[in-house]
Amino acid sequence: MRGEPLDAEMIVSATEEVLRRHGPEKTTVLDVARLLGVSHGSVYRHFPSKAALREAVIRRWLDRVRDDFAAAVQDSGPTPPDRLRGLLTTMFAAKWAKAKEDPELFATFRVLAAEHSSVSSAHVAFLLAQIRAIVADGMASGDFARGEPEVIARAVFDATSRFHDPMHAAEWSSPEAQAKAEGVISLILDGIRAR
Amino acid sequence: MRGEPLDAEMIVSATEEVLRRHGPEKTTVLDVARLLGVSHGSVYRHFPSKAALREAVIRRWLDRVRDDFAAAVQDSGPTPPDRLRGLLTTMFAAKWAKAKEDPELFATFRVLAAEHSSVSSAHVAFLLAQIRAIVADGMASGDFARGEPEVIARAVFDATSRFHDPMHAAEWSSPEAQAKAEGVISLILDGIRAR
Repeated sequence: MRGEPLDAEMIVSATEEVLRRHGPEKTTVLDVARLLGVSHGSVYRHFPSKAALREAVIRRWLDRVRDDFAAAVQDSGPTPPDRLRGLLTTMFAAKWAKAKEDPELFATFRVLAAEHSSVSSAHVAFLLAQIRAIVADGMASGDFARGEPEVIARAVFDATSRFHDPMHAAEWSSPEAQAKAEGVISLILDGIRAR
Repeated sequence: MRGEPLDAEMIVSATEEVLRRHGPEKTTVLDVARLLGVSHGSVYRHFPSKAALREAVIRRWLDRVRDDFAAAVQDSGPTPPDRLRGLLTTMFAAKWAKAKEDPELFATFRVLAAEHSSVSSAHVAFLLAQIRAIVADGMASGDFARGEPEVIARAVFDATSRFHDPMHAAEWSSPEAQAKAEGVISLILDGIRAR
């Protein structure tokens, strides 16, 4: 047992480390306990099941993606079209960077996220809300054509799936990925502009 | 040996049948020969390798997708915007139908198409050429804003990946798929309209 008291955050970090080394199939609560130098009972006091522990790991990881994302979105420009372009560019860049920096962990999280669809749905809902807010602002300012912000936001999200859906991660390192993303963003911005 | 002389078409049909039953890993040239009641040497006289045989199967399958597609596109309307909407709707419907009617064969072809990327690239090039032709017509008629048809066609293709890329096949049976596709098509049509 280490000197510092064991908290949930430490357990989540250790689990992330074990997942990175062994992948989702082979990772056990015992491995996590071993890495922390504690008994597996100590881990279970914080997380009632392996599923709960995995879910906490994904949730923290998605929170990090979201924070990177929110930080980068701040300075994307003053008008709604600039902000939407900035938001989409940043969203793709954040995902592409995660997939590139740590491909094994990214693949692991894809699998886990598919198992815990409520966590993934919350992440999608967060992204949709970001898009919707800018779309609504742009309609209010007269930059974007009038419409239902919810419906338009969903279409923007779906039209950019190729650049943010983890299923397409293998394509993101292609030299053409950036140009393709810019082509689609321009098409979308033209699509929602007021006329 | 059957009564009719063995031709390449018969071998391709038999291979498709064996692939449907056993999947791409377990399918052998011997299985194909057995189904046809011929020696495996007879198969090799038409196809020098298992890879060549598989490639012929995918090529024929994609040709069929393409023919269904071309037939359905004919009557989609007189103006370039109607024609583009018709083309995209038909393209999605053709893929969704294939994925639904025969999910195992569709999954198999996904794997094979990934191995034979030149065949897949030719198919993508065909789809892109169809989109590009309508985009160019629409620019000429003044319905679409001026631009580079090649670039716009690529953006249209990429923005609709969610509805035609086999990677997303599992989502196509969702009750929301049709509404999502329509949302993206409308966004695209607004994006390329002349202003």
